[in-house]
Amino acid sequence: MIDLNRIAELIGDYDLSDVVIATVCSHSSLQIFDGARREGFKTLGLCIGNAPRFYDAFPRAKPDEFLCVDSYADFLNHADELTEKNVILIPHGSLVEYLGHKNFEKLEVPTFGNRRVLEWEIDREKQRTWLGRAGITMPRKISDPSDIKGPVMVKYHGAKGGRGFFVAKTHQEFEDGIDNTQPYTIQEFILGTRYYLHYFHSPIVKKGYQLSNGTLEMLSMDRRVESNADEIFRLGSPKELESSGINPTFVVTGNMPLVARESLMPKIFEMGEAVVEESIKLFGGMIGPFCLETVLTDKLEFRVFELSARIVAGTNFFVSGSPYADLIYDNMSTGRRIAREIKLAIEQRRLQEIIS
Amino acid sequence: MIDLNRIAELIGDYDLSDVVIATVCSHSSLQIFDGARREGFKTLGLCIGNAPRFYDAFPRAKPDEFLCVDSYADFLNHADELTEKNVILIPHGSLVEYLGHKNFEKLEVPTFGNRRVLEWEIDREKQRTWLGRAGITMPRKISDPSDIKGPVMVKYHGAKGGRGFFVAKTHQEFEDGIDNTQPYTIQEFILGTRYYLHYFHSPIVKKGYQLSNGTLEMLSMDRRVESNADEIFRLGSPKELESSGINPTFVVTGNMPLVARESLMPKIFEMGEAVVEESIKLFGGMIGPFCLETVLTDKLEFRVFELSARIVAGTNFFVSGSPYADLIYDNMSTGRRIAREIKLAIEQRRLQEIIS
Amino acid sequence: MIDLNRIAELIGDYDLSDVVIATVCSHSSLQIFDGARREGFKTLGLCIGNAPRFYDAFPRAKPDEFLCVDSYADFLNHADELTEKNVILIPHGSLVEYLGHKNFEKLEVPTFGNRRVLEWEIDREKQRTWLGRAGITMPRKISDPSDIKGPVMVKYHGAKGGRGFFVAKTHQEFEDGIDNTQPYTIQEFILGTRYYLHYFHSPIVKKGYQLSNGTLEMLSMDRRVESNADEIFRLGSPKELESSGINPTFVVTGNMPLVARESLMPKIFEMGEAVVEESIKLFGGMIGPFCLETVLTDKLEFRVFELSARIVAGTNFFVSGSPYADLIYDNMSTGRRIAREIKLAIEQRRLQEIIS
Repeated sequence: MIDLNRIAELIGDYDLSDVVIATVCSHSSLQIFDGARREGFKTLGLCIGNAPRFYDAFPRAKPDEFLCVDSYADFLNHADELTEKNVILIPHGSLVEYLGHKNFEKLEVPTFGNRRVLEWEIDREKQRTWLGRAGITMPRKISDPSDIKGPVMVKYHGAKGGRGFFVAKTHQEFEDGIDNTQPYTIQEFILGTRYYLHYFHSPIVKKGYQLSNGTLEMLSMDRRVESNADEIFRLGSPKELESSGINPTFVVTGNMPLVARESLMPKIFEMGEAVVEESIKLFGGMIGPFCLETVLTDKLEFRVFELSARIVAGTNFFVSGSPYADLIYDNMSTGRRIAREIKLAIEQRRLQEIIS
Repeated sequence: MIDLNRIAELIGDYDLSDVVIATVCSHSSLQIFDGARREGFKTLGLCIGNAPRFYDAFPRAKPDEFLCVDSYADFLNHADELTEKNVILIPHGSLVEYLGHKNFEKLEVPTFGNRRVLEWEIDREKQRTWLGRAGITMPRKISDPSDIKGPVMVKYHGAKGGRGFFVAKTHQEFEDGIDNTQPYTIQEFILGTRYYLHYFHSPIVKKGYQLSNGTLEMLSMDRRVESNADEIFRLGSPKELESSGINPTFVVTGNMPLVARESLMPKIFEMGEAVVEESIKLFGGMIGPFCLETVLTDKLEFRVFELSARIVAGTNFFVSGSPYADLIYDNMSTGRRIAREIKLAIEQRRLQEIIS
Repeated sequence: MIDLNRIAELIGDYDLSDVVIATVCSHSSLQIFDGARREGFKTLGLCIGNAPRFYDAFPRAKPDEFLCVDSYADFLNHADELTEKNVILIPHGSLVEYLGHKNFEKLEVPTFGNRRVLEWEIDREKQRTWLGRAGITMPRKISDPSDIKGPVMVKYHGAKGGRGFFVAKTHQEFEDGIDNTQPYTIQEFILGTRYYLHYFHSPIVKKGYQLSNGTLEMLSMDRRVESNADEIFRLGSPKELESSGINPTFVVTGNMPLVARESLMPKIFEMGEAVVEESIKLFGGMIGPFCLETVLTDKLEFRVFELSARIVAGTNFFVSGSPYADLIYDNMSTGRRIAREIKLAIEQRRLQEIIS
């Protein structure tokens, strides 16, 4: 893990009137670059090989400069070049995945947010501990198949990117379907509708929904579009398809916007608040955007099946605001909100509170 | 029912340069408060217990003041306090439900819209009469189960909030599934795609789509997100799930935005027009926002399964306009549209035409 | 097919400071008229019978004038009247369908885009050739039913508007379901999630994503709402419903907005680019808006099942911009983008490059 003193040292040498916002050219980079520019920052796109051409089509989101290397790990060798440019790195899911979390943790470049969140996010057991201590209800894990009393989701270990799942409605269906030669985990299947809640925790902004350190915002919501699960019903039910070797997969292909019942707002804020407060206790606090990935049941109860501790691609729909952000700001994307946070922190000489 | 003379008397004493827009803190209150402020009004949030904290997160939608009481019925005892503040109450679905419609009808506070609509809306038979006389096609009711010729939706009496339904595709399936110890109603199941059409009837605005009294606007559309019905297919078909005791439920958890084929616009306006014109004949007219809850079949025919006679939560997505509102106004939500109507009516000294 | 010299002649007589944008009053006309006005053009609505009243409700999209005739074919007799008004016609799907493509091809009115695209679009075999030469992957056609190895979509000839399809998961299901008295085609059923990609090819704008002639933009995406296929699962699986004589139908009733994973952007632009470049080779180039109708599989591969060579109704949601258009322009709809293209072409005296 990067030493915070080292980051403080690096930032100490920065020309804070000339900060460059950088991120990897994927995931949510369009809104990050667009948002950084709207807040007055220069931008730098990190990529492999050649600069992607598609930015030419989006002039407002095209970074001022590209740094292209041969492999993501290579960025570790370019840390000096980045810090000489006064770069603050914005981590998104693909950046962390491509770089590798070990590399990401030690990269000697000032990075928005608290990098210590990573170990609590990546390790499934630690994440369960975190969420559990925050009072969040998660789908139940079932260790003994004979305890299956209702629908379950079975996931083979090593299954990646939304594949290698199967759904069983009963213990018998589990026994009929399971491939015992592979290790697996069983989780309660939560029937309901999915809501991905996009929060922002600001240690800098003092006015708003108060936390013990700063404030909490709700910027938008989406539902992930999952292939093939979202449209598989056109072909048949999972059970009918099984014999054809077709199983539901949950590969994210994009996102649709939505809003939740307003009466759920108190609960939504309580959940976000509890998760942030617990993060402060556990590792000094999660900073900036995060997402609770939920199923909302027909009893109007949220079940949280995952937490993402940074900007999620579900915010990509909301490049110019959202039904929620519009009640706080003009034309505010999550990418722009990150840049705004950095700008405010620079103005208040508090940058060290939001970077690591 | 409130006496209109009493309302006229109350309004007669109002300082119309200092009107306060009030509603219950739920449902669609964020856009109502935001919209009222954009139109220059002060705002008041009505709530039980303590003021909800989540408004702190949405400064543009946080009411200027809260009136917190112990129970919703208590608001009846605070009518004087409200009228002294020059309050105009904006009724939404939760306000009417929480207050109770009998209490709502007699509350001595000037209220946007025509409260007489309530008896025609709440009584299912009266609503069918209203819609039927307007030439609206509704799903057929089936009184004798042996008349079941195609898919039906069976609803047990007293079933609440989207539960207690089951779907049968044939008479046999109905007989297999029905619990005869409970009273029920049978309705034709309309296969298609759901569209919730958000209209606005203005007696004040003279330019536009002409009605016998004022004009008709189409401000937006949504599809309700219903738990668990919207994602139940991931687990199996209703028939497959029956034996596991899992049935589709239709609890609204939120809303997704959409648009309808433009070629349907004439039909959409004809339906809205007919419903308003009939309301004028029946009870003096439905005023302001209303919603037709429809299924659009593959013959491109609308079937209307319900009417809501006030702002619906499906408009919550459209805090800053919609694909339709943007063709009329800048940044116009339904909540703001209500405030605009009140502002115009005050300017034209015609407030009594739109309150009751 | 209209003679381009004739069009040049007509345009030569136009008062280019007084051009009128016209289209048929349906499909995507609201955004076309609204967009034309925003770009400073006068507008003309073409319709049958009386001018549709619903435009009264959308003042920003109401055409300045209407030309109402008895039948669509009648517009051929009004070509002079249109050209005397300096009309440029914007073709959309309904205009082409209502007018008939033979009539459309010979209508002596300057029309936005390249009318020669039509023969390559309407003839399914020619469209397959075009897309295939562009390297686009389409669902496989199966000529011999005994080659059915996985799910297929069977379409009876003459089936229209989203009806007359059935889905079979195996060869046996095909044999059980097929009505051999009707001619049919069999196509691979692509399991995934549908994305309708709204591109714009500009020969006029030089800065951006470079093509051999001009630039390529990605303005928005949608998912079509299809009745009854999108909600049929609420009743049962296709197989369960078969015996009740209920089959999935694919009638478009409207559109929902969405965004795709950002990592797909390079692929999305490559596809659009290839299709345009091939169109330049085949028939001089497709100009302005076009749409690739895709299924995105769980391997994150696009399968293109159709191309529309003009503005599609899926852009109707994006009257005031989109998550993609907002990264290029302010408040830019596809309708407005067309008007902008015409405006730029007039300014640069290059109108003949984008009309036919």
